[in-house]
This record gives sequence, structure tokens and C-alpha cells, in this order.
Amino acid sequence: MSDSLDRMLKAIKPLDASAMTAARQHQNSLTKPHGSLGRLEELSIQIAGIKGQVKSKLEHKTIITMVADHGVAAETVSLYPQEVTRQMVLNFLKGGAAINVLAGQIGARVIVVDMGVKGGFQPLPGLLCKMIDFGTKNITQGPAMTRQQAINTIEAGIQVVEAELGRRLDIIGTGDMGIGNTTASSAIFAAISGRPAKKVTGRGTGIGDRQFAHKIKVIEKALSVNKPNSKDPIDVLSKVGGFEIGGLTGVILAGAAYRIPIVIDGFISGAAALIATALSPQAKDYLIAAHLSAEAGHEMLLQFLGLKPLLNLNMRLGEGTGAVMGIFLAEAAVGTLSQMATFAEAGVSEAKPLEPH
Amino acid sequence: MSDSLDRMLKAIKPLDASAMTAARQHQNSLTKPHGSLGRLEELSIQIAGIKGQVKSKLEHKTIITMVADHGVAAETVSLYPQEVTRQMVLNFLKGGAAINVLAGQIGARVIVVDMGVKGGFQPLPGLLCKMIDFGTKNITQGPAMTRQQAINTIEAGIQVVEAELGRRLDIIGTGDMGIGNTTASSAIFAAISGRPAKKVTGRGTGIGDRQFAHKIKVIEKALSVNKPNSKDPIDVLSKVGGFEIGGLTGVILAGAAYRIPIVIDGFISGAAALIATALSPQAKDYLIAAHLSAEAGHEMLLQFLGLKPLLNLNMRLGEGTGAVMGIFLAEAAVGTLSQMATFAEAGVSEAKPLEPH
Repeated sequence: MSDSLDRMLKAIKPLDASAMTAARQHQNSLTKPHGSLGRLEELSIQIAGIKGQVKSKLEHKTIITMVADHGVAAETVSLYPQEVTRQMVLNFLKGGAAINVLAGQIGARVIVVDMGVKGGFQPLPGLLCKMIDFGTKNITQGPAMTRQQAINTIEAGIQVVEAELGRRLDIIGTGDMGIGNTTASSAIFAAISGRPAKKVTGRGTGIGDRQFAHKIKVIEKALSVNKPNSKDPIDVLSKVGGFEIGGLTGVILAGAAYRIPIVIDGFISGAAALIATALSPQAKDYLIAAHLSAEAGHEMLLQFLGLKPLLNLNMRLGEGTGAVMGIFLAEAAVGTLSQMATFAEAGVSEAKPLEPH
Repeated sequence: MSDSLDRMLKAIKPLDASAMTAARQHQNSLTKPHGSLGRLEELSIQIAGIKGQVKSKLEHKTIITMVADHGVAAETVSLYPQEVTRQMVLNFLKGGAAINVLAGQIGARVIVVDMGVKGGFQPLPGLLCKMIDFGTKNITQGPAMTRQQAINTIEAGIQVVEAELGRRLDIIGTGDMGIGNTTASSAIFAAISGRPAKKVTGRGTGIGDRQFAHKIKVIEKALSVNKPNSKDPIDVLSKVGGFEIGGLTGVILAGAAYRIPIVIDGFISGAAALIATALSPQAKDYLIAAHLSAEAGHEMLLQFLGLKPLLNLNMRLGEGTGAVMGIFLAEAAVGTLSQMATFAEAGVSEAKPLEPH
């Protein structure tokens, strides 16, 4: 373990049960039928437990989009060439990607982190460099990274969150980009859950039948070559993971440690959540699953985590695009809890259950 | 028929197929895997067809929340006393209700329309008066309103939309308030679909088992006393409807006539959509179903309309609260279609389906 990782794991505490009780009571005093805001009410109570207070404001919203390359891209597991990872970083920085448009809609900033893109970048405005190496190694031939590199990825994620604390950080959304990263994520899920590769693998960018069958074989080979230890999440990350997945693991752990709600995006963020919650089961309570992605293994992954997605829009883009939707709903939840009038304040009559005459 | 209703029905045209084709092509040129924005892509294409152009901006967003009382409230079908309708109008005007908070989050204005609240109101800032009468009559004893009043409600809705056109109106969300209005809505759905009352009735504000059984009997009685003609939507509205439901019918028809996307809220808005699409089947293509509400008959109602809800958050509040969520997603859809960079613009490599080696 490392100092900062160890510090996070020690700092992650249970949710504040008394704030949650008070939030639930306050919900029932607001001018609406009890429970009529459905999942928004549950979400507002969870966030009260995270923040340790009933009312709050999600003003400072940040999407952390971590990017890295994957050696396994050499096995042609994606519909897109590996260079797209680098090209999309430049697209993020110019504001042309989906995540830019969507984050803009909710007034969130997007932090683009180079966790290890092939070839690296010259310093670029808006790009945070935490690069571990020029992409991972090909997991069909050996481990993706060393154990120390795996720890370094998590530390990098912690550092990104800690650096943001000074600018205020009320809620975090996770995002990813990296050609080949659904392959790494499926391998992580298979390794941790013991489920067969074919059950937890999807079509990623939208590959056809033959390439899909090949992708499953690639993952099976990666697992048999590396034999990740399912009880050791750092081992799993180092053997079949990715730099951006490790980085997001650190983001999740730091978010939980600093009591910041973390809205997880899709399948890749889910793989990071698997590693994070294996390191700290308590961290799970700080997670909000934004959506059920169209990636085949995602539903099973969320069930494994014990998380219920808020949305199901058949999205499968990553970048943090689903997380934006989840943050919008979290704001709606916190906004209604914090700003609505109570029955007493508004002079509205409360429910009077009546028997039929 | 009336002049303005007739004018709307004549003005409702099919969606613009060429704009939809162009929107679909443009989606496939944007920097993301084809189809990876899922339902947002479908929504963006529908809105292109509504507006007759590929790119647009949903800047002027309006929630139209129509309020009225229901004579059937005397049958104790709700958990709340009838006076809550009036009290909630005042809560809307003071900004203390859920719809105020949520509409504020997306920068939408809320138009509160008194379609017929018991006792009426003195002129109040922010309250639009279109009142038909001091609430409908008790539908267990006769028709809710006269046929002319039913037409007047629809005309009032058309007037509300037409008055807003000058302020610009890029998207409309429908909302409702009225103690007893799930009873009226279930009766409308039963009358139009021929389904038995017990299949299309839910617990509204959250009534208990005995009151629920009573509510079903009330609806059965209303149907047998009034015998609404399922082939005549105005007859159904006048026999078992509500003033706010008729008003929303007019809003929907005017939205479709003026090619404005209409995001329908929950069960009551759904009942209005039943009347509207019975008058003009073409109007259906202009509707976006925001969410599946927790009200029991809503899923069946949306299936009957042929609409697929965007969200399922177990909400059942009305007011337009679900519509706000739907408008947020519509903005996300239009924003990504209109603002994202294309592969060519961003210099991102396009997909190259590869065979496994």
C-alpha cells in the first residue's frame, strides 16, 4: 500500500445516519404527497448521509475524465484505431466532444487527465498530466502494468481530487476514454466476480459478431496468462486493468474519504468501482450509479456492486456522459429537499386518510 | 367544434422526414461511436422532425401547469382535502413547490393556469385565469361539464400557447394540479380504451386499500352513470374529465400545430394526450413521454399511446415535475446533435471494422 491510499482507506467512514433520518423527516414535511418524488427522495437522503447535513447545494460540479491507452488494442478488440484515444483528448480540450456539451449544460467543469496516452502530450492548456506510461502492456502476453504502477494510478486519482478540493468540489462525476478499455473492464469484472468472460463482455464501440467472439477469447487469454488474484484488487488492476481505471479507483476512494458524492458513469467507471469497493466496501455508499449502459456486462456489474442505476437511455459512450445525467438528478434531489416549502410554511393542509363513506 | 380547435387540427402536419434523415446522418458524423448516445440520438432526430431543421436550441422552455378542482373530490378519492388545490396554487406562485425548484434548475418558466379552482382567485401576479367554473361537477352523479365547457377548456389551452409564442417557445412541458384528478384521468382512460376501471386506476396521492377499492367503485359508477362515447373524445372529456385535462389537451394540440416539442408529464398529462391524439392521431409524433410514473395505470396508458418513457424514477407528483426531467434530456439531445464536432472537424479517425487476426 501507499501512504495516500492508506490514508484514504482509513478516512472512509459510514454515512451519517442521523443526517439521513433528519432528511427523511424533512422530505415528509414538504408540500407533496409522501414519497411522490420517488428515487429523487432516496437520492436526497443518501446525499444528506454523505455530506452529514440535511440541506446542501451542489454548486461545484466536476467531471473527471481519465484517458489512457491499452496495449490490448493491438489485438483489434475495438472498432476504432488506437490513435482515436489521442485524437479524442484533443477533441475534449477543444470542447467538441459529447462530454463537453453535456457538462456545459449542467455547468460542470471537465478535468481531462492523461493517465497514459501512447506518445504522450506536450503541455496543453486544460490537460492534466498524470501519465504512468505510454499505455499499458498487452494483457494477452503478461500483466498490464507493474504492481507499483497500479498503486501509482490510484494515487494519481487521489491527487486529482485533492487538488480540486481548494476550488470546492460538491459532487464528482467519473468519466473515461481509452480504446480497448471495455476489454480491460470486462477482464477486471471477470477476475473479481469469477464470472466467465463471455458473460461479462459486450460490444464496446459496436463491434460485429466475429470481432466480438475474438474479444471474448482475448479476455479469456488475458485471464489465463495473468491469473489475477480475485482477493487482491491491486493485483487484478495491475494484471488486466488500465491506467484510467486505476485513476478512477483513486477518484472514487478520495471522493468517499472527503464525503463527496461520486456519480459513476458506465462500464469502465463500474470496473473502477469494483476495484475501489474491493479495497473499501464502505466506499459503495458514496456511489450513485448514473445509468445502465448498453454495454452487455453493465447490468450484472451494477448488481454485483449492489447499485441501482437512475437512468436507462441505452447510452454506451463513456467520457462521463452518463454521469452528467446522474448529477442533474442529484441536483434535482438536493434542490427539492433543500428549497421546497413545508406544509406549515406554505399553509397547505396535510394528508388526512379518510375512510370511504 | 370551435374555430381555434378546428384551426389547430388542420394545422397539425407530419414530422419533416427530410430533416430527420439529415439529423440521422449528422449524428453518424459526430465524434462518438454510432448510436452510442442511445435514446438521446432518437430524441434529437424526433425534435429535428418536429422543428423541420437539424440543429436547434431549446432556449425558451415553458412548463404549463394547469390547475382545477374536481367535484368527484366529494367522494373522498384523495388523501388530501379539496382545499389543497387552492393552497398549492398559492405555493406555486410563491415558488415553494417542487415544480418551481425543478423548473428553476433548467431555467424554464412556469405558467400557472387557473382552469377552475373552487372559489376562484382575485387577480394574482403570475396566475393566468382561464377558469371555466368553480370546479367540475361530481361525475358519479352526472357529467363533469357541458360539451361547450369541454370545448372551452381546449380553447383555453390553445390560447395559453398562442399567447406565449410572442415570448418564444422552443419546448413545452405539461403539468397539472387538482385534488381528484387521477380519478378523472383513470375514468378517461377507461372510457377511451375500454379497459376496466380496476386495471387503470392507481393510488393517486397514496391512498390505502379501502379507499383504493372505493375509488375504483367511484370510477365504475361515473362510467355507468355518464356512458361516455369512446369514439367522441370531447364527449369523454365532458362526461368524466377535468378542466385542467381539457386545458392540457389544448396545449398539446397547439404545440403540435406550431411544431413545438411537447414533453408530457405523468398520468394526468397522459389523459390529456389521450384526448388530444383521439382528436388528432398525428399529434402523437410531437409528444415526448418524460417518465413512467408510479401511478398504476400509467404504463398501460403510455403503451396505449405508443410512447416510450425516457425515465423511470418512481415519481408520482404531477405539477410538471417529470416533464422537467424530460426537457433536460431533450436539451441534452439537441445540444449534442447541434454542438458536437464531427470526425472531420476534430480530425478523429472513423470506425474501421476489423476482422480478428
